[in-house]
Amino acid sequence: MERQASVLLEVCVDSIQSAVNAEAGGANRLELCQALSEGGLTPSAGLLAVVKKAVSIPVFVLVRPRRGDFFYSDPEVEAMEIDIERLSEADGFVFGALKADGSVNESICRRLLAKSDGKPCVFHRAFDVSSGDAILVAKQIAALGFVRLLTSGRAKTAVEGIETIRKLLRESSGNLVIMPGSGVNPGNASIFASVGCEQVHASCKRPVGSAMVFRNECCAMGDEGEDEYTRFVTEGDIVKEIVNALR
Amino acid sequence: MERQASVLLEVCVDSIQSAVNAEAGGANRLELCQALSEGGLTPSAGLLAVVKKAVSIPVFVLVRPRRGDFFYSDPEVEAMEIDIERLSEADGFVFGALKADGSVNESICRRLLAKSDGKPCVFHRAFDVSSGDAILVAKQIAALGFVRLLTSGRAKTAVEGIETIRKLLRESSGNLVIMPGSGVNPGNASIFASVGCEQVHASCKRPVGSAMVFRNECCAMGDEGEDEYTRFVTEGDIVKEIVNALR
Repeated sequence: MERQASVLLEVCVDSIQSAVNAEAGGANRLELCQALSEGGLTPSAGLLAVVKKAVSIPVFVLVRPRRGDFFYSDPEVEAMEIDIERLSEADGFVFGALKADGSVNESICRRLLAKSDGKPCVFHRAFDVSSGDAILVAKQIAALGFVRLLTSGRAKTAVEGIETIRKLLRESSGNLVIMPGSGVNPGNASIFASVGCEQVHASCKRPVGSAMVFRNECCAMGDEGEDEYTRFVTEGDIVKEIVNALR
Repeated sequence: MERQASVLLEVCVDSIQSAVNAEAGGANRLELCQALSEGGLTPSAGLLAVVKKAVSIPVFVLVRPRRGDFFYSDPEVEAMEIDIERLSEADGFVFGALKADGSVNESICRRLLAKSDGKPCVFHRAFDVSSGDAILVAKQIAALGFVRLLTSGRAKTAVEGIETIRKLLRESSGNLVIMPGSGVNPGNASIFASVGCEQVHASCKRPVGSAMVFRNECCAMGDEGEDEYTRFVTEGDIVKEIVNALR
C-alpha cells in the first residue's frame, strides 16, 4: 500500500507570538482569532496585518463578534459583513450562524459568503451545537458553498466525537473537507490520520509566564481568579510533534 | 453650598447589545472592547462601525492586542499603531504600556499617541500594575499627553483603592482626569462622587441567558467550564441606578 501524504495541520492562534511559533513548528495554515479563552473572536485589523507580515502560510480569519451562541442579531451580522470587508488581507474566513431552533441560518451564511469576494469560507463549530442529522447538515453547509467544516463531531472533544467524524468523512458531500478540532494533541493526532482526515485543527498551546519583573498580583484585569502573568501561547515543539504524528 | 454637577459615567462594553443598553440607561460615554472576560481587547472594525451607528454618545476604543501583561513586543506595538489608524471612527483611544521593571514605557506611549491624530487618549489600568510612586506616575502620564487615567487605585477594586484615588485626585497633575473603575456598582458609586471624582467607569453587566431553543450543552467553545448559553450584557437599569447614585 502506498504511503499516504501528510495530513495538513491548521493551528488556531490569538497572538503574534503564537502565529510565529506555529509557522516555525511546521503548521500549514493559521486560523487567526482574538481571545481563544472565549472560543475565539474576530481579530483586530492590526493583529491581522502584523501576522500576515510575520508569516508566509495562509491566514484564515475567524468572524465572530462576541462570545456565546451563534444566534445573531441583524446589527451583529452587519458587523460581521464589515469585518469581512475590512479584514481583506485574510486568505479566507471562518464563521457560522444558527437559528434559535438549532438549524443553520442559510440567509445569514449567504450574506457573509457574498462578502467574502470568492475567498474560501469555513463553517466552524456552530455545527457542533446545531440540530438535525449531522450528515444532512454537512450536506447543507457544502451546498451553501463552504469549502470546509471545523468540527468536534458534536462532542466535547474530537476524540470523543470520532464516530461522527468518521461518518462525516464517509458520507458528507464530496467537496466539503471535514477538519476535526477540539482537544487535538500530539498524543491523539494520529487517530485522525488513521480514520482518513486530510486536515486537522489544534491550538498547540501551553501556559507561558510573563517577562514582567515588577508585579502587582492583586490587580486582575479580567475575570476573577485569572492569572494575569500567565498566557497560553502556541509552542513550536507541540506543533512539530503533531506534524510528526500526522505523517 | 451649590449642588455639584452630575458625575460623568463611562460604560465599558463588548457587544452591540451592551452598547445600545448603556446609552439607553443614560451612560455618557462608551469604552468599546472585545472580551471583557480578559479585561478587554481591541474590538474589530465591524463592531466599532456598527456601534458608532447605533449610539450617539462618544465611543472610546480599547487598544490591547492580547490578554495578560502590558509588556509589548515591537510587532505588538505595530499592531496597536495599525489599529489606531484603522479604527478611525473612534472618538478616542485607551491604552497603556509598561517596561519589565513596571515603569511606564514612554517611547511606546509616544508612538501610540502620535498615531491618534490629536484624538484624546486615556491611560488604562496598566497604571494599577505599574511600579513607582502613584502620584509621580500619574504626573508622568499627564506630561506624556494623556487626558485621563482609568484606575482602581492599584487595588483589586476601586473601593479598596479609594485612598490612592483620593490622593490622585488631590495631588496629580491638574489636567489629568482621574476616573475610578473596577467593581463600581449602584451600591458604591456615590462614594466616588463624594470624594470629588468627575468621572466614573463601570460595566453595569449582568448574566443573560441565550435565546437558543435547541442546545447542545456538551460542546463548549471556550475555556473548560464556561457556560456558552450565558453572556454578560450591560443592562440599562444598572446604568440608570449608577447615574442616579452619582447625582
